[in-house]
Amino acid sequence: MDVDEGDTPLDRWEQRVELPLFYASLVFLAAYSVRILAHDVDVVWREIALATMLLMWFVFAADFAVRLRLSGQRLPRFLRTRWLDAVVLLLPLLRPLRLVKLYTTLQRRRDQPVLDLYVRVIVYAGLSAVLLGWAGALAVYHQERTAPGATILTFGDAVWWVCATLTTVGYGDVTPVTAWGRTVAVGLMICGLALLGAVTGSFSSWLIQVFAREDERRPPGDARPPGASS
Amino acid sequence: MDVDEGDTPLDRWEQRVELPLFYASLVFLAAYSVRILAHDVDVVWREIALATMLLMWFVFAADFAVRLRLSGQRLPRFLRTRWLDAVVLLLPLLRPLRLVKLYTTLQRRRDQPVLDLYVRVIVYAGLSAVLLGWAGALAVYHQERTAPGATILTFGDAVWWVCATLTTVGYGDVTPVTAWGRTVAVGLMICGLALLGAVTGSFSSWLIQVFAREDERRPPGDARPPGASS
Amino acid sequence: MDVDEGDTPLDRWEQRVELPLFYASLVFLAAYSVRILAHDVDVVWREIALATMLLMWFVFAADFAVRLRLSGQRLPRFLRTRWLDAVVLLLPLLRPLRLVKLYTTLQRRRDQPVLDLYVRVIVYAGLSAVLLGWAGALAVYHQERTAPGATILTFGDAVWWVCATLTTVGYGDVTPVTAWGRTVAVGLMICGLALLGAVTGSFSSWLIQVFAREDERRPPGDARPPGASS
Amino acid sequence: MDVDEGDTPLDRWEQRVELPLFYASLVFLAAYSVRILAHDVDVVWREIALATMLLMWFVFAADFAVRLRLSGQRLPRFLRTRWLDAVVLLLPLLRPLRLVKLYTTLQRRRDQPVLDLYVRVIVYAGLSAVLLGWAGALAVYHQERTAPGATILTFGDAVWWVCATLTTVGYGDVTPVTAWGRTVAVGLMICGLALLGAVTGSFSSWLIQVFAREDERRPPGDARPPGASS
Repeated sequence: MDVDEGDTPLDRWEQRVELPLFYASLVFLAAYSVRILAHDVDVVWREIALATMLLMWFVFAADFAVRLRLSGQRLPRFLRTRWLDAVVLLLPLLRPLRLVKLYTTLQRRRDQPVLDLYVRVIVYAGLSAVLLGWAGALAVYHQERTAPGATILTFGDAVWWVCATLTTVGYGDVTPVTAWGRTVAVGLMICGLALLGAVTGSFSSWLIQVFAREDERRPPGDARPPGASS
Repeated sequence: MDVDEGDTPLDRWEQRVELPLFYASLVFLAAYSVRILAHDVDVVWREIALATMLLMWFVFAADFAVRLRLSGQRLPRFLRTRWLDAVVLLLPLLRPLRLVKLYTTLQRRRDQPVLDLYVRVIVYAGLSAVLLGWAGALAVYHQERTAPGATILTFGDAVWWVCATLTTVGYGDVTPVTAWGRTVAVGLMICGLALLGAVTGSFSSWLIQVFAREDERRPPGDARPPGASS
Repeated sequence: MDVDEGDTPLDRWEQRVELPLFYASLVFLAAYSVRILAHDVDVVWREIALATMLLMWFVFAADFAVRLRLSGQRLPRFLRTRWLDAVVLLLPLLRPLRLVKLYTTLQRRRDQPVLDLYVRVIVYAGLSAVLLGWAGALAVYHQERTAPGATILTFGDAVWWVCATLTTVGYGDVTPVTAWGRTVAVGLMICGLALLGAVTGSFSSWLIQVFAREDERRPPGDARPPGASS
Repeated sequence: MDVDEGDTPLDRWEQRVELPLFYASLVFLAAYSVRILAHDVDVVWREIALATMLLMWFVFAADFAVRLRLSGQRLPRFLRTRWLDAVVLLLPLLRPLRLVKLYTTLQRRRDQPVLDLYVRVIVYAGLSAVLLGWAGALAVYHQERTAPGATILTFGDAVWWVCATLTTVGYGDVTPVTAWGRTVAVGLMICGLALLGAVTGSFSSWLIQVFAREDERRPPGDARPPGASS
């Protein structure tokens, strides 16, 4: 494909590995889920999950090393310009934040966007929020499950708490009480607030657009062709 | 009306049934209200309500079948392009989400929109939120009423909880405790967040528009033509 | 002033009374505050406050009658086109919602807006929110003060609850428990959500504008005159 | 630098001291942190912290006096046009609100903005929110620590409460109970709501921009020139 001709080797690498890396992060999340949720089953499964997580992490680290090498930059400058790459290497549970990058990389291979602009923002921000929320529920459940005075006792409680937190409803009937649980919660609040704010804002813009478009289309004896109004 | 001439049979069908279907969904909601709220009166009324709900549901199913046939598509593809039709068939309480479709269908028959763009978005999103909130209050009340440890004990509590949830205030003085109640709550949070976000955003835009319009109108002896100032 | 020449008698009436009516609604609010807050002092003050409230209400009713007469419309149609006038007649505590009307009326008498568009929206929406919040705190305090099981026991609690509600923080440490208290609360949530949403949205737009304007002003050797960039 | 030639002496003063004043306010905040948090260590440190705070405050007061003199205005008019200067003099903990001013002052010395418009708004509003939140946590912790019936018992609780408040989640598991604590809380809600609303709104706009930009860049063999599409 000749679109790629002007790209640097780093761009080509990113386009090639972005989708496999996304699958790897899904595998990482699944293995983490097994590791956390299967705490009362055979220890073998938990060890397999741990091994999978480590394997995926080595894949992420190798990708980071290749990017660093291909960029031709020294580590400090690379970290400054691509700090999100470094953050998601250290905290693979935050990899869903790379969904926008994944989207733009994938989109370059196609000719036409399949969805309306606002709908795409809703889908991608919503998907990131769901994946981050799932990772956050697992992490908080892991911290709180055995803490004294905890109110998040089951994974269902953790999911319920995550939903109330991401939507900023915040009932407070179940809340984290440990320092690490609260740290995860704060990260979740900030990421979720921004992502769901994007979902809400885009939905609002989309709705206004739908109503405004109908206004344009309505006049039946209008001179201009119907296709020109969109 | 010659506006319809270029339309497909499916479009014509939709324009003809959209308003009757909306009334049918109001009847469904009323019957559901009777079924849930009249739990201590004569059992006959509750059976009549159930029969009405089933009848309405058959009307919805028949409409879905006609749409599928008129579209000339196979079921899987039809489901993919018109998934909202399928969702509101399975969960008729979500039918208020079709209000936008209803609006655009009705609007095509008129010549002039009766309200300002932002006001229309506020009215329709607000109306959807009210209907969804009512359905959600009924569903949560039904789940929670007899649950052990429940705090939502009366229908008034359920309505109060819905209002605090949709506006994302979330006091937490009454909250659902059952798994199904919480599932309904999460659905309500997401729908309500988006709908009320649209109401808030449109109100904000409308207010800015009102203030900006006054600026334009004010200078009476101004030299420049009125149209140039926008 | 010749700006008024093209106006109808109703417009002239509105321009003349809008500001006095606003002062009257402030007097009404002050009298209501005395009536509610001074429940343990001499009964004479409370009677004076009640008399003041009734007097102000008669002023509002007289204004409504004049408007109806000047409009030349019958009552049902007048109610439909000017429902906000009727609502604020029945519930004078909602009169702060007319602030936008007051603003646009006052603005027509001046030549230049004194403040930036977004700043004006922030000021007027914020002022409306403060006045509505004060009225809501009084009304809820009046309902809850003597209710069994109430958590809003002092007026300070009511103000604290109003602030947490209008900002949608909603701690839930103090919440209304009576039916009327909760009804006021729901009205407050909706009005406050919209008004503070307008404040937040305008602040956000204003901040983006400030940052964008600096970008324009920065290039010092730019050809165009500095005044043209604003 | 000839950019400054057209500036008034007041502008030149502001450009010269804005950055040192920002460092001074950081020192003030650090000294306040030591004063509040080190309540169980040697009293000498707390005295040193107090002395530092007073010293910084004298610096702020001297700057205010110089501004007043350079403006050539009388005090009442100076207060009206530059009320934020007076507010941050009385409440130095609110100085982070001047970050926008600091930014625009610094920006005038450079030629190119280093970051995208929305990213800059996110960074500056986010930074203001963090500094204000830190100051608010200290102030509330100071008020609540020894109050009877308080739920904010440790500084960790105060930080957790600030995060839940600024994001409007508002669990209500820990809340201020004293009058001064609640006053600080209300100020924090309002400032934080506006600042985080700006962060959320800018993030939303930035995300939509990123998605829209990809649409433009994609069609490689498109006829129209690339510059015309923006």
